[in-house]
Amino acid sequence: MDENPIAPMSDDEAWEVLRQHEFGRLAFHLLDEVHIVPINYAVDANKRIIFRTAEGSKLLGMAMNSDVAFEIDQYDEETALSVIARGRAVTLEGSAAYVADDLPLRPWVPTAKFNVVAIEVSEISGRRFHLDKPWTHMHLN
Amino acid sequence: MDENPIAPMSDDEAWEVLRQHEFGRLAFHLLDEVHIVPINYAVDANKRIIFRTAEGSKLLGMAMNSDVAFEIDQYDEETALSVIARGRAVTLEGSAAYVADDLPLRPWVPTAKFNVVAIEVSEISGRRFHLDKPWTHMHLN
Repeated sequence: MDENPIAPMSDDEAWEVLRQHEFGRLAFHLLDEVHIVPINYAVDANKRIIFRTAEGSKLLGMAMNSDVAFEIDQYDEETALSVIARGRAVTLEGSAAYVADDLPLRPWVPTAKFNVVAIEVSEISGRRFHLDKPWTHMHLN
Repeated sequence: MDENPIAPMSDDEAWEVLRQHEFGRLAFHLLDEVHIVPINYAVDANKRIIFRTAEGSKLLGMAMNSDVAFEIDQYDEETALSVIARGRAVTLEGSAAYVADDLPLRPWVPTAKFNVVAIEVSEISGRRFHLDKPWTHMHLN
């Protein structure tokens, strides 16, 4: 195959794809370690990635080091896409946290999550992939 | 709902789920930053997560700081699962890299990736979720 199987998205397209999804993965520092967790999120009018979280290592880690990365992806047999954002996580206090109430921020798991966090995005990149999975057409005995 | 919507997996079950998948996300340090990328992977006989990568920021970052985290997930309308592993990334050199040839390590995107990396896992945790998405049954006009 001579075509490049990877096509970058424009920033606008990457944001549009982020807005169309509600499930991604957050990578954050916890002291010297890197951690990763799946989260539900929504994008607000200021292009911030908003999510809710309970007290715990995620909130503690981000309070000590606000540098975070976030990823979503989607794939089928022939194509895939991925959007990656990096930025700074800020816990929203007081009325600033009300932004979450106006978003389609729908936690899939109904556990108590009282803290609202915004990722202020400094870098975003999206890519589309043409997949090459010949083995899905093979039937091995 | 009174039942706990989150059920932890045993370590054995978490490994079994890892073996059944081939696509996940790697979080790694790059200098002071945390980064995240989607990768194809396979689990070897020594319970290491093996993947191929080209030269680049991922390889550079892991060479400078081997601490990494890895995540897979899967979901449908009613259930979800997630497995998270943490450990140390080691680039396999010489004959040690041949391990990749005996694994079902199938990159979905056919770009050149000459380096073989093993994550030596120090912590693994898996969880199953019962989802509560009432809005998927709503039809709003």
